[in-house]
Amino acid sequence: MTNPVVSRAAVIGLGLIGGSVAAALRQQGCYVSSYDIDVSNTASGLDLGIIDNAAETVSDAAEGAELIVVAVPILSMKEVFSAIEESFDQPHIAITDVGSVKGEVLNSLKQVAGKIPNNFVPGHPIAGSEMNGIAAADADLFRQHQVILTPLENTFEDSTSRVVQMWQSFGADVSSMQVDHHDIVLAQTSHLPHLLAYALIDTLSSQGDSLEIFDYAAGGLRDFSRIASSDPTMWRDILTSNSGPLLTILDRYMAELAEVREIIEQDRTGDLFDLLQRAKQARDHFSSILEKRS
Amino acid sequence: MTNPVVSRAAVIGLGLIGGSVAAALRQQGCYVSSYDIDVSNTASGLDLGIIDNAAETVSDAAEGAELIVVAVPILSMKEVFSAIEESFDQPHIAITDVGSVKGEVLNSLKQVAGKIPNNFVPGHPIAGSEMNGIAAADADLFRQHQVILTPLENTFEDSTSRVVQMWQSFGADVSSMQVDHHDIVLAQTSHLPHLLAYALIDTLSSQGDSLEIFDYAAGGLRDFSRIASSDPTMWRDILTSNSGPLLTILDRYMAELAEVREIIEQDRTGDLFDLLQRAKQARDHFSSILEKRS
Repeated sequence: MTNPVVSRAAVIGLGLIGGSVAAALRQQGCYVSSYDIDVSNTASGLDLGIIDNAAETVSDAAEGAELIVVAVPILSMKEVFSAIEESFDQPHIAITDVGSVKGEVLNSLKQVAGKIPNNFVPGHPIAGSEMNGIAAADADLFRQHQVILTPLENTFEDSTSRVVQMWQSFGADVSSMQVDHHDIVLAQTSHLPHLLAYALIDTLSSQGDSLEIFDYAAGGLRDFSRIASSDPTMWRDILTSNSGPLLTILDRYMAELAEVREIIEQDRTGDLFDLLQRAKQARDHFSSILEKRS
Repeated sequence: MTNPVVSRAAVIGLGLIGGSVAAALRQQGCYVSSYDIDVSNTASGLDLGIIDNAAETVSDAAEGAELIVVAVPILSMKEVFSAIEESFDQPHIAITDVGSVKGEVLNSLKQVAGKIPNNFVPGHPIAGSEMNGIAAADADLFRQHQVILTPLENTFEDSTSRVVQMWQSFGADVSSMQVDHHDIVLAQTSHLPHLLAYALIDTLSSQGDSLEIFDYAAGGLRDFSRIASSDPTMWRDILTSNSGPLLTILDRYMAELAEVREIIEQDRTGDLFDLLQRAKQARDHFSSILEKRS
């Protein structure tokens, strides 16, 4: 057991991410109190030894915590923020979230608190997309994974450094960027791929013999299929909350598909080869750089 | 060493699939002669102990073989078929291929031989999409993978059963279906997913800071990225050879994307949730059936 980053923490929302944060904190010897709208999740958390206390309300869970981690779907955050309003601007408490769309999280905060509290550090761990729920919680989930923080100018340095320390103590690589930039990058690297995967499974499963299609999924479909198994509520919230950047990149993608369609229809094999090779080279180039880094 | 399915085989084209077939045959004690347009591939095959003989021409490789496996990109098959024309209609020789589009392979055969030879058994192992080249060849590549054969009415039963035996001896699950049906199923399960992945990488890598995008690939992009690393020549041939079924399903997919786009733009969260849940349920349903089977 290492020295805990904080001695008392609250985790609001005990799904895969919240559960994994709780597990990692408790493993360090931190006392973890948790609230989830579904009481069976906190009950499981107690059974699995992931949390110390299953609170009956959000504010009960937050009572006495030096660190509050909000890990609920994005459109449920506003309600949680209202319940912990007393904790805002208390410098000894750091508050963070794990939402995939930072702009919308900050909008919700502004609606509740009138401004972004100085002790709130917006955060986003890039981990765990296809597994769902407390049962898959894993104290090692964040090891060697990226975590992006988007602190604002008014954010207390102490709050930021406490959140940085938490993620680093879990073995994560922490970086920071501007809120808008985060939402654009994530629209491209995560939100669009998930949308494309869901749409592909939906298109194919409405064809004739769907079972047969999944029988031959090893030919390429399997990878797409995996991320389409992510939680629908979480992804409804992400896709609608980040609609601006998402539609921008979706439009570019649809334009590219239309171009590829024309190339294939007109049997322009040279142009098709160029496109495929360009994509492979880009992928291989970036893969090799990323491998060298790690 | 088990009893080999045949004592002498020819493998034309020594990439990942050809190399893995050669390795699996030779491991059984079969004598394997091979030709590849790139002599460094057959040289590697000798070095790696995957083949017995590096032939200088296709017909030299085929000399004396009881089984000929054609494992070259689809649009290169016609030339290979011309070189082995003498082997057609020799009942003691079975000939098969591994192409991902059966209609186009049969077209090439008809152009060369005037008809589909009775000893030709069209085949397609569903394996190994993102790795390339002889260096990745693996005698166990086909274990627990699907192989689809599309024999015709005139195909010799003996030829078919020899090819079935070969794949089964590699640990593969062999099934058969109609040529047209194969090409439709593969357009949906393999060709469209590959096209979508290539197009996504191409779209994203032409954005501002591409390296940053790949830095956060763990959020969903990584899976798409993997299959976009497949061989561009092989995939140019597949996508153009199967353009009919491919464009049909691509059009349905583009229509679905346009619908999802409208749902997100109009913030119809209920409709979005229904679509995501439908896709997840389809994926989970088929996954659970497939797991029970295996």
